[in-house]
Amino acid sequence: MILESAPPDGTEDGEVTEDRLLNGRVRLLQPAHGYRAAIDPVLLAAATPAAGGDRVLDLGCGAGAAAFCLAARVDGVRVTGLELQPAAVQLARRNAALNGVADRVRITLADLTQAPGHLPPGGDPDLVAGRFDHVMTNPPFHPGGRHTRSPRPGKATSHGEGTADLATWIAAAARLLAPRGTLTMIHRADRVDEILARLTGRFGAVSVFPLWPRATVEAKRVIVRARLGARSPARLLPGLVLHGEGGRYTAAADAVLRDGGALDL
Amino acid sequence: MILESAPPDGTEDGEVTEDRLLNGRVRLLQPAHGYRAAIDPVLLAAATPAAGGDRVLDLGCGAGAAAFCLAARVDGVRVTGLELQPAAVQLARRNAALNGVADRVRITLADLTQAPGHLPPGGDPDLVAGRFDHVMTNPPFHPGGRHTRSPRPGKATSHGEGTADLATWIAAAARLLAPRGTLTMIHRADRVDEILARLTGRFGAVSVFPLWPRATVEAKRVIVRARLGARSPARLLPGLVLHGEGGRYTAAADAVLRDGGALDL
Repeated sequence: MILESAPPDGTEDGEVTEDRLLNGRVRLLQPAHGYRAAIDPVLLAAATPAAGGDRVLDLGCGAGAAAFCLAARVDGVRVTGLELQPAAVQLARRNAALNGVADRVRITLADLTQAPGHLPPGGDPDLVAGRFDHVMTNPPFHPGGRHTRSPRPGKATSHGEGTADLATWIAAAARLLAPRGTLTMIHRADRVDEILARLTGRFGAVSVFPLWPRATVEAKRVIVRARLGARSPARLLPGLVLHGEGGRYTAAADAVLRDGGALDL
Repeated sequence: MILESAPPDGTEDGEVTEDRLLNGRVRLLQPAHGYRAAIDPVLLAAATPAAGGDRVLDLGCGAGAAAFCLAARVDGVRVTGLELQPAAVQLARRNAALNGVADRVRITLADLTQAPGHLPPGGDPDLVAGRFDHVMTNPPFHPGGRHTRSPRPGKATSHGEGTADLATWIAAAARLLAPRGTLTMIHRADRVDEILARLTGRFGAVSVFPLWPRATVEAKRVIVRARLGARSPARLLPGLVLHGEGGRYTAAADAVLRDGGALDL
């Protein structure tokens, strides 16, 4: 990890680190304080079933960790990152250049509660209702009321994503997805009930993929994938055990986090 | 397994078997054809957090497998079985006598869509709205539309439980439960999305407990427990792996199915 010496433009507190993901294949500038990407966006990108040529929306992309991991794994994928916070948008655009994928990862400053309606001129032309083959998202963790403290203070703005609840995120995804498009979400496992409840009606073919910190303890995170307009039944999958003996990543986790493999949902 | 020679009264096709559950501690007369209890009601009873003196409702009890397993595990528990089909009610009452628990397992013929409103005279006095500490239920598997064939033809009557959907079962449980009472349901894992969606609003503290046929395959069944009126977050639990090497039950499964242990949700 490298701590930059000079505060770059557009960050709130000036401090930015450069981190590496996927064994160095992805470089990520991100704020030194506040919300920082760890393994969640890497797992999210691994679980998003995109193929070359697909259009993918990273809803609330932050500095773009999931977007760049997906671009690294899937040749020819086109990713649109949508983010409310100007500082994060600027970092994400720098990251696109840093990773040499600015031609196929484009970042738009927008409020997901408004998109795709009121977008600034010059934005990503893909950002149109019904356009995306896939949406991936790692929404802020503070809820509509149940958990009072946000572990993502950088997201807790007063006018947008910080206060949008899960229903709003899922509604935005449904608006922007093409018919039969997929939504992939990583979130706190203790909100799995709310996620599934909010998907009901518009989405089907729901897959629940728990992320187990160790083999015998309850899941802290869950990946949920669903298909817009599908009617097929749900699947409750074995998921992924992250840590094994001595706290090291399991081989299955390493295959994703280090080797850049896909997660099989 | 013993196949009785004479058709007993009250069964539709006359053939009844006597099976043993919990290593012989529970004797169960049930129809030789149609829906037959296997391990689902045993697991359901093991997951129901009843203590001595608690009132428990077995909603759609069939021949009573879950009720008798619970009575065998928990001293002093009082179980009310509610069942729509007269033949099953008669079998369940015979089973109560056979297991020597007729004083604390009582079976009422009733339609859950009506209960506790319109009950026949002489029914269980416990069968009153807001009375039960716990509801356990193993609803019929045919759905509100997604799966067309019912694996429980004996349940598919034209005027009641056979056509009641999950929302109706959950609403009946909510009516009959005391404040903060628990609902424990075993069902097809591919309906976990619908179960959680239907619980939302009235129930909280949801625990999702997958039943894995083997360690690395998707769950076929799921146990969901929730608490009426609770607001606390969900839990996605490691669940139980049923089969290990050579297809035999795992030690953890044996501890429940043979030794009569509780499941820790």
